[in-house]
Amino acid sequence: MELPLASWARQLQPSAIQDMLQNITKPGILSLALGLPAAELFPTQGMAEAAARVLADQASALQYGASLLPLREQVVALMARRGVRCEPDQIFLTTGGQQGMSLLARLMLEPGQPVMMEDRIYSGFQQVLEPFQPRRVVVRTDPRTGIDVDAVEERLRAGEKPAFLYAMSDAHNPLGVSLAQRQRERLAALAREYRMPIIEDDAYGFLQYEEQSLAPIRGHEDRWVFYVGSFSKILAPALRVGWLVVPREMIPRLATMKESSDIDTTTFTMRMINAFLASGQFETHLERLRGAYRERRDAMLRALEAHMPRGTVWARPSAGMFVWVELPEGADTLKLLAKSLELEKVAYLPGQAFSVPGGRSAANGMRLNFSNCEPARIEEGVARLGRVLQRG
Amino acid sequence: MELPLASWARQLQPSAIQDMLQNITKPGILSLALGLPAAELFPTQGMAEAAARVLADQASALQYGASLLPLREQVVALMARRGVRCEPDQIFLTTGGQQGMSLLARLMLEPGQPVMMEDRIYSGFQQVLEPFQPRRVVVRTDPRTGIDVDAVEERLRAGEKPAFLYAMSDAHNPLGVSLAQRQRERLAALAREYRMPIIEDDAYGFLQYEEQSLAPIRGHEDRWVFYVGSFSKILAPALRVGWLVVPREMIPRLATMKESSDIDTTTFTMRMINAFLASGQFETHLERLRGAYRERRDAMLRALEAHMPRGTVWARPSAGMFVWVELPEGADTLKLLAKSLELEKVAYLPGQAFSVPGGRSAANGMRLNFSNCEPARIEEGVARLGRVLQRG
Repeated sequence: MELPLASWARQLQPSAIQDMLQNITKPGILSLALGLPAAELFPTQGMAEAAARVLADQASALQYGASLLPLREQVVALMARRGVRCEPDQIFLTTGGQQGMSLLARLMLEPGQPVMMEDRIYSGFQQVLEPFQPRRVVVRTDPRTGIDVDAVEERLRAGEKPAFLYAMSDAHNPLGVSLAQRQRERLAALAREYRMPIIEDDAYGFLQYEEQSLAPIRGHEDRWVFYVGSFSKILAPALRVGWLVVPREMIPRLATMKESSDIDTTTFTMRMINAFLASGQFETHLERLRGAYRERRDAMLRALEAHMPRGTVWARPSAGMFVWVELPEGADTLKLLAKSLELEKVAYLPGQAFSVPGGRSAANGMRLNFSNCEPARIEEGVARLGRVLQRG
Repeated sequence: MELPLASWARQLQPSAIQDMLQNITKPGILSLALGLPAAELFPTQGMAEAAARVLADQASALQYGASLLPLREQVVALMARRGVRCEPDQIFLTTGGQQGMSLLARLMLEPGQPVMMEDRIYSGFQQVLEPFQPRRVVVRTDPRTGIDVDAVEERLRAGEKPAFLYAMSDAHNPLGVSLAQRQRERLAALAREYRMPIIEDDAYGFLQYEEQSLAPIRGHEDRWVFYVGSFSKILAPALRVGWLVVPREMIPRLATMKESSDIDTTTFTMRMINAFLASGQFETHLERLRGAYRERRDAMLRALEAHMPRGTVWARPSAGMFVWVELPEGADTLKLLAKSLELEKVAYLPGQAFSVPGGRSAANGMRLNFSNCEPARIEEGVARLGRVLQRG
């Protein structure tokens, strides 16, 4: 049946990668593929108490309502822990981090305009860009050092004027890398100098596993950086709450855009999160979560050391949910995935899912998730993957 | 401060009407303005039980998840009560009805394309269209009979090919009117004959106050009608759950579009609604709600009869939340609102909020809401409005 679609939407076809995803989620597969948090670590009891309290105490708990000031104040406090100073009137609450990115792109981008990005990025951001068919200005990125800031500067100096740069300074998806202090400062300075907005996706920024962590780019620049935060990875994704930190002048336009998208209202789950944060349990919860994920990361790094063949490389992530593993040049991890599923019933996300039109191939990379499985399963999964790779 | 915005977004300015809305929501104002359901009629206890049950029973209650089949089956059963036959694989769950409209428009509309609409429509749909700067093909509508189907046919016969027609067959917002059977059938036939998609907004369709009600246009045509439903008005808006009924071939594209907007996931509130519906309390709840709103509607109609000056007209709505009142030609209800607020502290929405660029002025109309106040408040509000109008 022919559907009445806009021309860009007519071209939307499920890709080979989406077909592959169908197989990944079949029962019986040990999956290191998706970016799922661990359901057993959700603060379920605390959330149940929060839901009960909100419904018992607030007559308007289920009614339309204006943007929840107490929750925005809580977010300001959270941001301070990330080294970012901001005010409640710079916070915009969203339906998860994904909506934050989508609203920003829709407000800032015109069809066909250039957008600057790394040559491996979160595929969900590519989906955001799709309807705009932007010109992609692609810069190199590295699993150990992240975005090539020299390349960014070079492009800007050559006169490129992107609608924005999309960047992740901590726990890059898919590379796992966090930027050095100097790179954060330089990106902030370039944004100022060239009046280039940066959409900074900090979905994993609160999941830090080392003693020290650095402030995101927003901590160095408050006018040109549009920061995207999320409760999905630190509380739970099905609550669908995230936030933006933006110049306060942007808020009315975001409100109009969100109103047209899904009504700018205080949802029940925002009220739940506010009640949970107000109960003072968040600190303990986050420490517990970090501890468990740190253990899982370490289990994955040990397993890689034990089972990966020579010529395979990876870096140690200090934050987030992923380890990026690179096979020798010429390897094709999409083809290899079919074999992994068939021979060893183990899944990962192939590099192709993260490569960008016009950028280097990422076919020799694979993204492994360590948040969703307990250490023993991680060890087992990596061992299986090792066997697939040893066969060649 | 100059913001980095797309050109259409740069023009987004809060209108005189939005300024007015600021005043409407001030404390001390008796408001018949907004389309708010009555919070005291929400099934709060049932929802609290549903939340507790979901969190106690389902290990993945807060996790990402695929579109909830049991809830789509519940929606199929609901639709059958509206006289619409459909299957779970034609249902797409959304973040409220507004997101359903937004996703459909984004998939179906290209910038500058024509869209057909009545000359008074829901302002939230105009917001959806804004980024596309469409050419508006405007047809007349009437508070007693609704959309002028002859005019629709005439435009189509003259060769107009709109990306879609936006229509409400029951409880039109703002007019309150429901279409006659013959008009529904004719619109369905025109959609078929001219291959014109219809986005049918049925936000209020389950709030029927008479013995008999009619099936929406979707009940007469399943290929060209894209139906938008919502739990906001029959359960509660802060749950942010709605649905689409569309050709099944449309679902994968909607899923991709929703994924890029806010992740296509089973949210916690969808699981709550599913548990509430499964508990069998919905039937009783809806009957109670209809009974209360019917009383409020009747109170408003009686009050209008008692307090409106001669030359004022209105129709009796058989469904929904609104009565549309028309003053004599030449009246300006936006100006009058300032006076109403000042002299009598009573608010309504002026017709201008619903008029369409290129269409007739709606300046002599006002939309009065009867769902949000108890009968005595409605009587008081309309009496105050009567005093303002008597002064002239």
